Amino acid sequence: MKTVRCLVLLAAVGLGATAQADPLPSWADTEARTRIIDFVTRVTDPGSPDYVTPSARVAVFDNDGTLWSERPVYFQFLFAVDRLQEMAADDPTILDSDVLRAAARGDMKAVVAAGEQGLLEILKVTHAGMTVAAFQQEVSDWIAGATHPETGLAYSAMVFQPMLELLRYLRDEDFSTYIVSGGGLHFMRAVTETLYDIPPENVIGSAGETRYVVVDGVPRLMKDPAIAFIDDKEGKPVGIDAKIGRRPIFAAGNSDGDFAMLEYTMSGDGLRFAMLVHHTDAEREFAYDRNSHVGRLGRGLDEGPGRGWLVVDMATDWEQVWPDP
Amino acid sequence: MKTVRCLVLLAAVGLGATAQADPLPSWADTEARTRIIDFVTRVTDPGSPDYVTPSARVAVFDNDGTLWSERPVYFQFLFAVDRLQEMAADDPTILDSDVLRAAARGDMKAVVAAGEQGLLEILKVTHAGMTVAAFQQEVSDWIAGATHPETGLAYSAMVFQPMLELLRYLRDEDFSTYIVSGGGLHFMRAVTETLYDIPPENVIGSAGETRYVVVDGVPRLMKDPAIAFIDDKEGKPVGIDAKIGRRPIFAAGNSDGDFAMLEYTMSGDGLRFAMLVHHTDAEREFAYDRNSHVGRLGRGLDEGPGRGWLVVDMATDWEQVWPDP
Repeated sequence: MKTVRCLVLLAAVGLGATAQADPLPSWADTEARTRIIDFVTRVTDPGSPDYVTPSARVAVFDNDGTLWSERPVYFQFLFAVDRLQEMAADDPTILDSDVLRAAARGDMKAVVAAGEQGLLEILKVTHAGMTVAAFQQEVSDWIAGATHPETGLAYSAMVFQPMLELLRYLRDEDFSTYIVSGGGLHFMRAVTETLYDIPPENVIGSAGETRYVVVDGVPRLMKDPAIAFIDDKEGKPVGIDAKIGRRPIFAAGNSDGDFAMLEYTMSGDGLRFAMLVHHTDAEREFAYDRNSHVGRLGRGLDEGPGRGWLVVDMATDWEQVWPDP
Repeated sequence: MKTVRCLVLLAAVGLGATAQADPLPSWADTEARTRIIDFVTRVTDPGSPDYVTPSARVAVFDNDGTLWSERPVYFQFLFAVDRLQEMAADDPTILDSDVLRAAARGDMKAVVAAGEQGLLEILKVTHAGMTVAAFQQEVSDWIAGATHPETGLAYSAMVFQPMLELLRYLRDEDFSTYIVSGGGLHFMRAVTETLYDIPPENVIGSAGETRYVVVDGVPRLMKDPAIAFIDDKEGKPVGIDAKIGRRPIFAAGNSDGDFAMLEYTMSGDGLRFAMLVHHTDAEREFAYDRNSHVGRLGRGLDEGPGRGWLVVDMATDWEQVWPDP
């Protein structure tokens, strides 16, 4: 049965005008790869009962832990700490709370202990009070020079090669690929075009309030400290509705923060696909799930397979994790 | 000088592979038409110093009064009143305020007197407490059957033919066309694909809060009464940043509610275009500007021309207003 399907698949791929010889070279020859290619083939073949018109081929991807690594903490947070330290060097009086002082001296344990509230406090100081353009320039400059505290790699070298291939494969098959992440909208936009070839209009994320002001005749978009939207958990389908207005047919995530997005994606009519990246590879990347303080994955492991979601085992389903240097 | 430019223009248009013989047949042979074609030609000609790469060819359009009529009041408001009357027929107790009772008996004068607050009250009753999908179905059903109180026309027959041609012309020249309107996001999405060939992901509008809930295992997006975002005045550049993340190079509006959007568009580098539709044609459509309660246009008329913005005189620049029946 499996062999027959593979042969049919190979024939279909071989016949497709835009299909490549091997669209997913970094994926091992396992069921994960087969299921992805099977899905894409079925929704893109005009003769298939599962055919989906290109405008409805919407694919959504979480970012942290799904498209790039997220340990020891979200990279945006490492940016925030670097930026806080830089700002405090100029003006130490900005460190007016315990969590800010802890972050500035690099005491991540204390910062993590302060929870979401502490995190927001750091974001408010480091992600507001400047124009959107200036902020995005800061992020671009940072990512061009900063290195990861554990691997010593550039952050841009810690994207997942198999996911880059998957993004490209879907776009080659006329999917629109979107990022739908709890990460900051402006932070992500500063890097997503370079890292993933995803343009700013296809990025959905958390955001602070933005204010339009005209100073000396020059219009500016200013970043304010108040939170406007949190694109996580139940916020993800809401963000998808607000910005896309169509239910995706493909969703990829790696944590329970993506559960609602995958659930929403899968509940529409017709053939749909949901996948969770399971971080099982302590040797090549990191291994964590239920008890992690970032990217916690419990409910997805418990319920995902029963709901027909693919759980990608990073250690066995991926030939390679990060791109070649 | 003008003749020379026109000849160059005609040559350029004639040579363009995707250009049509006459992209704007409903536009009179006036300066307005010439300026639009001149702009498009210059930003799309790879040999031009003003060339803009396709991904940056972002064009934004207000909706009410720019793409379709807006008198005597915004069509969405006429929908809301129709819906309120229908709801009150089932359950008269929903009419628990003066403005709701006034709206239900069709006393538009009293509703207008209640100002923005009264309007919001009516929207909250008629635009919340149901799923996004059910609401959009209501709007689709309404627009398929309702007629305008003064013209007796279907609302879909009161779109502006010259603007339909402009939208198509820009898209043929690889522009992305977006609606950026004070109108409701979900209301507009129910009609914009049919009316303007603009897909849901290219619609930016005002929105209430949306909530993701799972009822009996079925995910739903519910419309809540609280306001999440008002996409008007200074909110328009903010909405553009939130959803597109690029500064447009072309913006069209018709009221001072569009001023900030046009100002923001024009303040970037390179060649840019802003236009205001001036409602000067009481015979074929409506004539109003400074003293209108909808689509008030004063500052735009005063400052627009000095800023290089095109003010389209509907009576003389358009051969035709609404499409042929």
